[in-house]
Amino acid sequence: MGEHDKAKRGIPPKEDFSSWYASIVEIGDLVDKRYPIKGMDVWRPYGWKAMKLIDGITHSEMERTNHEEVNFPLLIPEDLLDKENKLVAKLKAAREAGIDPSEMRFDEEVEGFKKEVYWVKNAGENELDVPMFLRPTSETAMYTIFPLWIRSHTDLPLKTYQIVNTFRYETKQTRSFIRVREIHFFEAHTAHVDEECASAQIKEDLEIVNNIMSDLCLPVIISKRPVWDTFPGAWYTIAIDVIMPNGRTLQVASCHHYRDQWAEAFGMTYEDAGGIKKNCHQTTYGMSERLLGAVVGTHGDDNGLIFPPKIAPIQVVIMPVAAHKNEDVMNTVNMVSETLRNHGLRTHIDARKIRPGQKFYDWEIKGVPLRLEIGPRDIENGTAFAARRTGGKSPISIADIVSEVNNELSEIAAELSDRCNNTYSKMVQKLNSMDDQIDDSIVYEIAFDGSDSDAEILEKNTGLTILGDDILPYDEPQKCIITGKMTTRKQHIGKMY
Amino acid sequence: MGEHDKAKRGIPPKEDFSSWYASIVEIGDLVDKRYPIKGMDVWRPYGWKAMKLIDGITHSEMERTNHEEVNFPLLIPEDLLDKENKLVAKLKAAREAGIDPSEMRFDEEVEGFKKEVYWVKNAGENELDVPMFLRPTSETAMYTIFPLWIRSHTDLPLKTYQIVNTFRYETKQTRSFIRVREIHFFEAHTAHVDEECASAQIKEDLEIVNNIMSDLCLPVIISKRPVWDTFPGAWYTIAIDVIMPNGRTLQVASCHHYRDQWAEAFGMTYEDAGGIKKNCHQTTYGMSERLLGAVVGTHGDDNGLIFPPKIAPIQVVIMPVAAHKNEDVMNTVNMVSETLRNHGLRTHIDARKIRPGQKFYDWEIKGVPLRLEIGPRDIENGTAFAARRTGGKSPISIADIVSEVNNELSEIAAELSDRCNNTYSKMVQKLNSMDDQIDDSIVYEIAFDGSDSDAEILEKNTGLTILGDDILPYDEPQKCIITGKMTTRKQHIGKMY
Repeated sequence: MGEHDKAKRGIPPKEDFSSWYASIVEIGDLVDKRYPIKGMDVWRPYGWKAMKLIDGITHSEMERTNHEEVNFPLLIPEDLLDKENKLVAKLKAAREAGIDPSEMRFDEEVEGFKKEVYWVKNAGENELDVPMFLRPTSETAMYTIFPLWIRSHTDLPLKTYQIVNTFRYETKQTRSFIRVREIHFFEAHTAHVDEECASAQIKEDLEIVNNIMSDLCLPVIISKRPVWDTFPGAWYTIAIDVIMPNGRTLQVASCHHYRDQWAEAFGMTYEDAGGIKKNCHQTTYGMSERLLGAVVGTHGDDNGLIFPPKIAPIQVVIMPVAAHKNEDVMNTVNMVSETLRNHGLRTHIDARKIRPGQKFYDWEIKGVPLRLEIGPRDIENGTAFAARRTGGKSPISIADIVSEVNNELSEIAAELSDRCNNTYSKMVQKLNSMDDQIDDSIVYEIAFDGSDSDAEILEKNTGLTILGDDILPYDEPQKCIITGKMTTRKQHIGKMY
Repeated sequence: MGEHDKAKRGIPPKEDFSSWYASIVEIGDLVDKRYPIKGMDVWRPYGWKAMKLIDGITHSEMERTNHEEVNFPLLIPEDLLDKENKLVAKLKAAREAGIDPSEMRFDEEVEGFKKEVYWVKNAGENELDVPMFLRPTSETAMYTIFPLWIRSHTDLPLKTYQIVNTFRYETKQTRSFIRVREIHFFEAHTAHVDEECASAQIKEDLEIVNNIMSDLCLPVIISKRPVWDTFPGAWYTIAIDVIMPNGRTLQVASCHHYRDQWAEAFGMTYEDAGGIKKNCHQTTYGMSERLLGAVVGTHGDDNGLIFPPKIAPIQVVIMPVAAHKNEDVMNTVNMVSETLRNHGLRTHIDARKIRPGQKFYDWEIKGVPLRLEIGPRDIENGTAFAARRTGGKSPISIADIVSEVNNELSEIAAELSDRCNNTYSKMVQKLNSMDDQIDDSIVYEIAFDGSDSDAEILEKNTGLTILGDDILPYDEPQKCIITGKMTTRKQHIGKMY
């Protein structure tokens, strides 16, 4: 394919990441952004299929870990927030007596939250007695019902999740998958007998995240967010960030340990084996379509998307070559496709009567991991010609087509992971001194054990944001970049989406 | 189980259908109705699983028939209705010139529709410039975008579908699955080159409906709705009704042939092979969670739910008997469960330490089609004791457990279908004369070929509603119940939900 064709499709070079990303989500047939509400894209079949394959991995992980799928109403009556308001009042009083700083911003957040929701105040020709809002997440809806489901310690742990549409009235610039107003959202909500069991849940969540991110071929930074970036009402928040090619970090998942801070406000209590009433300890774990945004942004190249095999809507595109000359060609193509499908692989036969180069180009844009070409000569040799989207071509045996293709796909996945790891090793750099030049397309690793005001200085001087404590601290103490004290606390700072 | 236990669970007799239905959806753990918005239930894991299994059948049928899954935004800006308003004006003018009566009620319907939607007029602290509503269905959203996807005859047929939440501000009494305000909804939307291709699509839709209803073990009445019950803007509507045990008909699906009535208003045109611009012909096909409502209402009995095997969240519950006396019992139970699961069957092991009678009772309520008991004596005999939820018990071979269980499940499905067919043969009766006594728990079959005013008389005198023309007319002409003229038009009248 010549440069002419590329220009015709209008894919900007990936170096210009922001333009490239905005273009490829449409050129790659993932979404249509022409729906007349900003930040609400139409999911096209190819994009929706990829998202559902990611959801499929999530469902499997939820089943493996005994979470049950529920589905709560989208609309939440405003008066359900009363309990949160009472909680706020309580936390305020506690604050005046001097409290755990993790709870400090909760009241402001409830107010902030009201500024970010869509309101339903009218139905038909009526004004509603109680206004309702579209869920931004489902804590309020669920914690209204959970107390009815939890009576005794035998009802615990309660492990639920749902995959639903959530809404946020974004005032910042919207970007497909990354910052949207209708969000395809996963949320797990659990309740446990005590803090320890809830902590074990967070550990399980991180194991799930690791499995999912591994299937997406994406390395991540896992941090305990600083106190001021902790989810309102949470004891602590662990966030999972991907580094996008422009060096900005993208939070793709987060887990919150609530301890029993919400339990009392919502009456989420249980009777233990001895008949004593106790507060539940809770956690939540959220992910969204940002996972797809991270996949698109990270793996793609100047020629289009590159899908990790596990979530590729089409894993193998098969092209007949010179089929008009030899009827064996279509027969073999069909047989190969059928065999692969019977083994759970997602194939597509491209028998369009257009130039092969045009076909290559189309599937390159769509990021299909493996292309097979089968012509009369290949059939004579008992092979198909395999071309990887990540580069490299070789004939593979038709007799062993299933294992050969699976092998190709594994190697493509490994190649994608390797590439990312290489990129990360360049994009994450140790910052040893505040005097060093700051590049905002770099994520800096720092030893940092300063106070809140030290953190403020750090963020102000660098223009970057603290992601928080890496869950894997340094083995050996290092000098804190601000205080000079020795610490094992490893943190990252960068420019966040 | 004694009557005592039944009363304790509070299942009313099914004879009192309305109370039975309202109770069993909660006692059977399908939904929780205590969410504080009327008509918006919480889907509990067991109910949601059943719904997703129904969706799974739908997805398979959609894949088989080459429909592509999309996902459109929930919110629709009010100004998109302008095109519909223009269409209304056009139809009004056409009416004055004397037109096809199928278009006559369209303008009133657009007004009516506005009375049935939830409005979003505020976001955060802002009043929106253009109010938006929550989709009741997606014609408006989709037909705004489809013209951008359809340029040439090679883009047709366009066959899309989505499974999403839709909303309707119901003012009538709500009932779980049957009449709710947040609706779990399936909608297929297609565009074709001409009327004939669109008609072929309707035929395919009816084939799909038949496959789905067969898996749900539900016989149906398929009728072309009378003109005054035709979907606004449609040329004709075909509706699929189930008869509930109280004799009321429940519309569970409908297909609409739009001809090209919407195409011009929305600019849904294409260039044919000769470069000539033509209007698309369109169809829609909708189904909802009413399918589950029909399953629950039809198959259940005094003791609880009965799930058709294809959509049973648990198909086989396995109970160890006297496991404490012999460790082979749990080993065999686990092995049997594992073997069945490996063959795609949904099993559950109930090893709770409670009375067996209590266990039987729990699974009876939940409608699990097959119960297997395995104890030391069964193991000696190489059998498991199989009890069907539909009645009947017998030992089956453990060595052939997969084929034996599949056979049991097929027979249970056949039994459910037989029961329904028997019930229908009693509930649907031929009405030969208007002088006959009318029983509103009966659906009457009539030969009817009268005018609109004849229909009005018919409905008024019987207090029943005309479902429309059965798609299978009489082989031999019969006397029209009103006019006395001979006709092959077979119709049904009954009380509708």
